[in-house]
Amino acid sequence: MADQPAPDQATGGFPHLDDRGRALMVDVSAKDVTARSATAAGTVLLSPVCVAALRDDTVPKGDALAVARIAGIQAAKKTPDLVPLCHPLPISGVSVELAVRDHGVDIEAQVRTTGRTGVEMEALTAVSVAALALVDMIKAVDREARVTDVRVLAKSGGRSGAWTRGD
Amino acid sequence: MADQPAPDQATGGFPHLDDRGRALMVDVSAKDVTARSATAAGTVLLSPVCVAALRDDTVPKGDALAVARIAGIQAAKKTPDLVPLCHPLPISGVSVELAVRDHGVDIEAQVRTTGRTGVEMEALTAVSVAALALVDMIKAVDREARVTDVRVLAKSGGRSGAWTRGD
Amino acid sequence: MADQPAPDQATGGFPHLDDRGRALMVDVSAKDVTARSATAAGTVLLSPVCVAALRDDTVPKGDALAVARIAGIQAAKKTPDLVPLCHPLPISGVSVELAVRDHGVDIEAQVRTTGRTGVEMEALTAVSVAALALVDMIKAVDREARVTDVRVLAKSGGRSGAWTRGD
Amino acid sequence: MADQPAPDQATGGFPHLDDRGRALMVDVSAKDVTARSATAAGTVLLSPVCVAALRDDTVPKGDALAVARIAGIQAAKKTPDLVPLCHPLPISGVSVELAVRDHGVDIEAQVRTTGRTGVEMEALTAVSVAALALVDMIKAVDREARVTDVRVLAKSGGRSGAWTRGD
Amino acid sequence: MADQPAPDQATGGFPHLDDRGRALMVDVSAKDVTARSATAAGTVLLSPVCVAALRDDTVPKGDALAVARIAGIQAAKKTPDLVPLCHPLPISGVSVELAVRDHGVDIEAQVRTTGRTGVEMEALTAVSVAALALVDMIKAVDREARVTDVRVLAKSGGRSGAWTRGD
Amino acid sequence: MADQPAPDQATGGFPHLDDRGRALMVDVSAKDVTARSATAAGTVLLSPVCVAALRDDTVPKGDALAVARIAGIQAAKKTPDLVPLCHPLPISGVSVELAVRDHGVDIEAQVRTTGRTGVEMEALTAVSVAALALVDMIKAVDREARVTDVRVLAKSGGRSGAWTRGD
Repeated sequence: MADQPAPDQATGGFPHLDDRGRALMVDVSAKDVTARSATAAGTVLLSPVCVAALRDDTVPKGDALAVARIAGIQAAKKTPDLVPLCHPLPISGVSVELAVRDHGVDIEAQVRTTGRTGVEMEALTAVSVAALALVDMIKAVDREARVTDVRVLAKSGGRSGAWTRGD
Repeated sequence: MADQPAPDQATGGFPHLDDRGRALMVDVSAKDVTARSATAAGTVLLSPVCVAALRDDTVPKGDALAVARIAGIQAAKKTPDLVPLCHPLPISGVSVELAVRDHGVDIEAQVRTTGRTGVEMEALTAVSVAALALVDMIKAVDREARVTDVRVLAKSGGRSGAWTRGD
Repeated sequence: MADQPAPDQATGGFPHLDDRGRALMVDVSAKDVTARSATAAGTVLLSPVCVAALRDDTVPKGDALAVARIAGIQAAKKTPDLVPLCHPLPISGVSVELAVRDHGVDIEAQVRTTGRTGVEMEALTAVSVAALALVDMIKAVDREARVTDVRVLAKSGGRSGAWTRGD
Repeated sequence: MADQPAPDQATGGFPHLDDRGRALMVDVSAKDVTARSATAAGTVLLSPVCVAALRDDTVPKGDALAVARIAGIQAAKKTPDLVPLCHPLPISGVSVELAVRDHGVDIEAQVRTTGRTGVEMEALTAVSVAALALVDMIKAVDREARVTDVRVLAKSGGRSGAWTRGD
Repeated sequence: MADQPAPDQATGGFPHLDDRGRALMVDVSAKDVTARSATAAGTVLLSPVCVAALRDDTVPKGDALAVARIAGIQAAKKTPDLVPLCHPLPISGVSVELAVRDHGVDIEAQVRTTGRTGVEMEALTAVSVAALALVDMIKAVDREARVTDVRVLAKSGGRSGAWTRGD
Repeated sequence: MADQPAPDQATGGFPHLDDRGRALMVDVSAKDVTARSATAAGTVLLSPVCVAALRDDTVPKGDALAVARIAGIQAAKKTPDLVPLCHPLPISGVSVELAVRDHGVDIEAQVRTTGRTGVEMEALTAVSVAALALVDMIKAVDREARVTDVRVLAKSGGRSGAWTRGD
């Protein structure tokens, strides 16, 4: 917690609100255009039956994880349309990886840009939507699937430089 | 687990894959048009400093939760664009509620339709995107925010009728 | 004013707000599916020089009004994406007409649906976006263009039946 | 009018048309990348009953203006999708303000970019869509609402430099 | 040619134009809601080197065709956003198949709806965008790829009933 | 074929796949921002009756080709939304030309950008969607229309420099 930014006095530290609490897209014109990246991760918790089905080599599942991967990549590009106060950014690279584990599927996304703001929201959006697409693929097998632990792992670039999650 | 649907033998129970593992949007023409609803929930875990800032009456936060609520409602409508194999549905109602708790913000979304497939994915998408918008609002105060426990709570309508999560 | 609906006591008559002032997309499941239509109109006020340029047969302007017409038709389909609490509707017809007048360009749009809510917002959106596209076409000639008088002229269908603007 | 640009002879001054009247998105590759901003404004004229309801402190209207503000901010980002010949631009800031007046609601939007073309259309789109969202919020109370006087107030940046509306 | 519809006298048979040549989205309110389907096909012609690379089992190409398949399915849902005068339709099923041949990749798409107009444009859009996504996947190997022979194969449902391409 | 790029050994030359065959949006951060352009073309083959109707001066067809032209321009901007692994690019100019010939309609699109990747996919998308919009306009007259020969004609800019199709 020691390296958390100090909340701004006037607005409680919420930069997307003006001093009367009204939403705005903050002006980032004065920020530098630099190479930036962010990595986020999350997990879809699944039943043992569903994990077994994903691992069962006797049924063809060619596109099962591809659908989630592609949905995540496309969602990174849609972030400013989904998150109302996000700035549009020229994304220069996205990867989304999924790994089947005993507890479900782990998802990790990395997004890169050369722009004026960071891409944490793009990375979180890629993970969240890849998770939704995966839940949709398996929901007939496991309707109790649960998306959990979606968080930023690390970021680099910009004024605040490199940061890695403490926990 | 007793009421989980039995996996289909040929495809491992993944209805969005054909028998060779290729993704498709399954034909629901033969399903009945009925009133359907789904409720989903999730939580954004926040630091005590961030929760305190959200509760601090000395700073104006008029639109802080409104942005997340509106983002969630709009995302429900975008579900077929985000989740590749989802059917477009005539959504007839969406509500998204956010409650500030000691551990963060709880989010619950309810979606209704009169259509041929259920709206679980729409409810999950509303919760997930409301959570993303909230994380974006507070990320300058708490960059370790974590979205967790996104799941379907209940659904009604359609052939399988009413269902409530067991846990 | 006599035929204005009476404001609801609890919410001040704002149906998109719940009793605590929170935005929601109201549930219209119980409304009838009926044929509905709405007509809206508006005007883009232009300088005499700009009107003369639009009327000057010595310059080819083949697509000038077509761009605005097509933008308006497409915008009617995007209404639920633009207006956060609008329901998606199966639009069954849209026409957008533009007429060059001495004072500028008059725009009128008619939208039809067979659905559970009216299409006033779709008709207003078609007029507004057709006006924006027209302003964009002529802005190098007249940067003082002004969009004015965008309003619903008439609607039909639904529980409240036919209505025509009084003024 | 003295500072209006002179119409181009060949095309009547319509830069989005080629010399045969066909629509195109003009090539701006040769324009400088500079900081640019634009301010636009407009008004939603409302009945006294509706204005009173918006001012009535006995009903909760928490999100009433927030919905319009957020819709306007999001619409600025959608401008190239709505206005067919607009260039995509890296918007670096948007604010939308609404003020309840005796005659209705005044709306003002400011948009900033660092790009090759101006953001007048983005500012006008933000105002227009904020107005549409507001009309949608209050249409059950006042179905005769009217959007009026949507125009550019000022712009800065680019080859033509700063400009402020004369009237 | 014998079963081609006879051109309408007034408009030359172009139903999306009114009698003055202006584009409109025709009113289909009076058409029946029936089950309808359409099948379209097309081919991406590729160099022998590129076909060999697609068939080479020594390189992993897991998602190569999945990307095109998913892009095609999603594009079917975007048809009314891409084709200006298309009606939005509640699509109830989409499949897109790709087959690697000696000459390149053959693509076939089938779309189903229960609605007031046919889904030929949705099927053609699915094929076209699947083809574009495939070209994007292989363009570093074969920049002379060519999309060819995109056409409707068959349709069923609606007033005109079943139709199969003659050639 | 002599100037075709050599396939990469590890991935068969498919740059959008990693070495395990998983789709990704490749990182182009290290590429230069340069002026780039691409030209693509294609043809919609039409029946003689349909060509005659397009040429018949006795029926008004004001917007017939404008709809296709505008659809193509707008589609160029939507390319990253349609083609899953395409990078978003700041498009700086688009033109789409249609010419009625004896065999149908020839379409050519030119797209310009100043960015890190080329705009071949944008030019191909503009041609493909213009073709789809044209097919939609004339489908009541000729349901056997066929889109053919969609290919890149030339490109310039970037590391690989100018290239013109050999055939």
